Amino acid sequence: MGHASHSTARDEYYMHRCLELARKGAGLVSPNPMVGSVIVVEDRVVGEGFHERYGGPHAEVNALASVSDASLLPSSTLYVNLEPCSHYGKTPPCSDLIISKKIRRVVVGCLDPHEKVAGKGIEKLRQAGVEVTIGVLQRESEALNEAFIKSHTISMPFVVLKTAQTIDGRIAVASGESKWVTGAESRREVHRMRSVHDAVMTTSSTVIADNSRLTVRHCEGRNPVRVVLDRLLRVPLSSAIFDGEAKTILYTSNALGSSEKARALKAMGVIVCAAGDDGDFLDLSAVLKSLHDEHALLSIMVEAGGTLAGALIRHRLVDRIVWFVAPKLFGADGLGAVGSLGLQSVDDAPVMRFSSSRFLGNDLCIESSVFFE
Amino acid sequence: MGHASHSTARDEYYMHRCLELARKGAGLVSPNPMVGSVIVVEDRVVGEGFHERYGGPHAEVNALASVSDASLLPSSTLYVNLEPCSHYGKTPPCSDLIISKKIRRVVVGCLDPHEKVAGKGIEKLRQAGVEVTIGVLQRESEALNEAFIKSHTISMPFVVLKTAQTIDGRIAVASGESKWVTGAESRREVHRMRSVHDAVMTTSSTVIADNSRLTVRHCEGRNPVRVVLDRLLRVPLSSAIFDGEAKTILYTSNALGSSEKARALKAMGVIVCAAGDDGDFLDLSAVLKSLHDEHALLSIMVEAGGTLAGALIRHRLVDRIVWFVAPKLFGADGLGAVGSLGLQSVDDAPVMRFSSSRFLGNDLCIESSVFFE
Repeated sequence: MGHASHSTARDEYYMHRCLELARKGAGLVSPNPMVGSVIVVEDRVVGEGFHERYGGPHAEVNALASVSDASLLPSSTLYVNLEPCSHYGKTPPCSDLIISKKIRRVVVGCLDPHEKVAGKGIEKLRQAGVEVTIGVLQRESEALNEAFIKSHTISMPFVVLKTAQTIDGRIAVASGESKWVTGAESRREVHRMRSVHDAVMTTSSTVIADNSRLTVRHCEGRNPVRVVLDRLLRVPLSSAIFDGEAKTILYTSNALGSSEKARALKAMGVIVCAAGDDGDFLDLSAVLKSLHDEHALLSIMVEAGGTLAGALIRHRLVDRIVWFVAPKLFGADGLGAVGSLGLQSVDDAPVMRFSSSRFLGNDLCIESSVFFE
Repeated sequence: MGHASHSTARDEYYMHRCLELARKGAGLVSPNPMVGSVIVVEDRVVGEGFHERYGGPHAEVNALASVSDASLLPSSTLYVNLEPCSHYGKTPPCSDLIISKKIRRVVVGCLDPHEKVAGKGIEKLRQAGVEVTIGVLQRESEALNEAFIKSHTISMPFVVLKTAQTIDGRIAVASGESKWVTGAESRREVHRMRSVHDAVMTTSSTVIADNSRLTVRHCEGRNPVRVVLDRLLRVPLSSAIFDGEAKTILYTSNALGSSEKARALKAMGVIVCAAGDDGDFLDLSAVLKSLHDEHALLSIMVEAGGTLAGALIRHRLVDRIVWFVAPKLFGADGLGAVGSLGLQSVDDAPVMRFSSSRFLGNDLCIESSVFFE
């Protein structure tokens, strides 16, 4: 018992390091998962590695390559936050490599839901006599790759809604003015979020109102793909979002997909896609499916007004909401962060769970997971 | 330097104990302040006491009385979170008692703003040769007695607004339903807040909609005075708030102050007061002034809807807001927690400072101080 719990704490310690290493691939490896790996001999780290970029070697390969004395491997434990792969993709199967290196024990954070793996990597290792422990920091491991897991589970992108609002839930005052609701620290965190999501989605209304660029400027990091929902093709060609600084996809209605304006946008390098609509909104589910299937975008951050937020929530398409909350009051005549939901009863309200709350300068940053029954 | 900082840490340690003792008088000593006192000889506590109830002995008197060996006093330090009084009130001056007991040193949290004290207690002690240190945990000491301090500074009560809302700032869904927005832990904390505020203020609309009693039921503690704002005297005589379980004050317009319904309420034991109004609202500033001056109520907790919250904020009458935030979404067609503010610019919005954020069950409890320029 004493030994077991000590061993668990040690396993968790090295798995934490795996997750830390894995996160270095954030924004660079999608649609692959973020994976880190640590090789340990008698409580000493002898090798480390992570999946650094899409198409590059897997974490285990990098970790094994970093071990200077290969004779240590048969007495080593390899930690990795995601099940080693068992199939030939862009690289050969990591489970075969681990077996060939005669690693004694493998500790895994969570299983890989990829239909070509899904337990087969573990099975292969065990059949070759490798001792395997699974589920160490499982919750954290699953959380890190939640977009990858959702993609391989239901083939839809993971959607994160961001709001910048007052504590009374408003994103603009009665006059419509909405600039600088939250402070500089919140803005920096929004840019960091952009840098690790595959795409940032917004609406023509937001582009027209704010002339947003949705690029990463207040921190280091690569730009996300920009996605503009513009059913009526209202966005001016001169908008800053068409600056060519990042791949930009625009969804409009089927009726306008081949219009002259659509052709003008395409000529400017914008990828113009068409989707169905109900006369009020584009078919949001179809748009997300298209982003996932046709553009391999697994994580979508939404930065728009209350109308899109409300529509996504009504259609149960949001996985998480990050609330940047300013210590200000705009009042009931201000514009709400989440559009109308048409609820008749408190019991019908979408229920979430707050996962964290922290101060960012004078603001609060609150994260919530959304559950739909 | 080393000695001084050690001594400061020790002083803070005993002052913390004073504040802890002082809080035991919460809800019981108003309109007096909450005060605790500790007597220390060579790092050993030899006496403790606090102001236990209005009209009873002051904290210093109780602390001194608790010392079994009076010969220790000339070598002792007396800690107290508020300046010892220097005037004859319901009890003789504590500064005289301290001098007569030959206490060596007195450490004070903050000065007493009471016009009859305000530094005179300290002066008296110093003139008698007592060593006095002031301002140890000054911020915490002032925060504990903020209502007392506001009362003796500008003769108005300290107003704490409470909201129970969703993270998108709503207190009811589109249909108007508003029961059980927040969870059991939040409700218990609301009852604890009631038990330590002098009065709880609400509106006829809330009484009619919820039939609220505003008594303390989900925790130990005494009931606050209940204050109902009812300009048009709409509240039914059968309302639960007239159950006689706590003193109840009702404010109506001057026009209705002597009406038949007002007389019926008085016959039921309700204290009916009249105040001016502008055709929409009672004069909230006059009501608060009356609660302070005529009823000696120094701390008012407000539990009502968005209309009263908005009106109090527009009139700059709120000192603090406690936000009980549920992980739910009611949407823009829900009812806002804070009524209309008519802001034309983001820069005109009331600015606050978040002082704390903590989880209460599934909810967040966020406190903010309100600043008006």
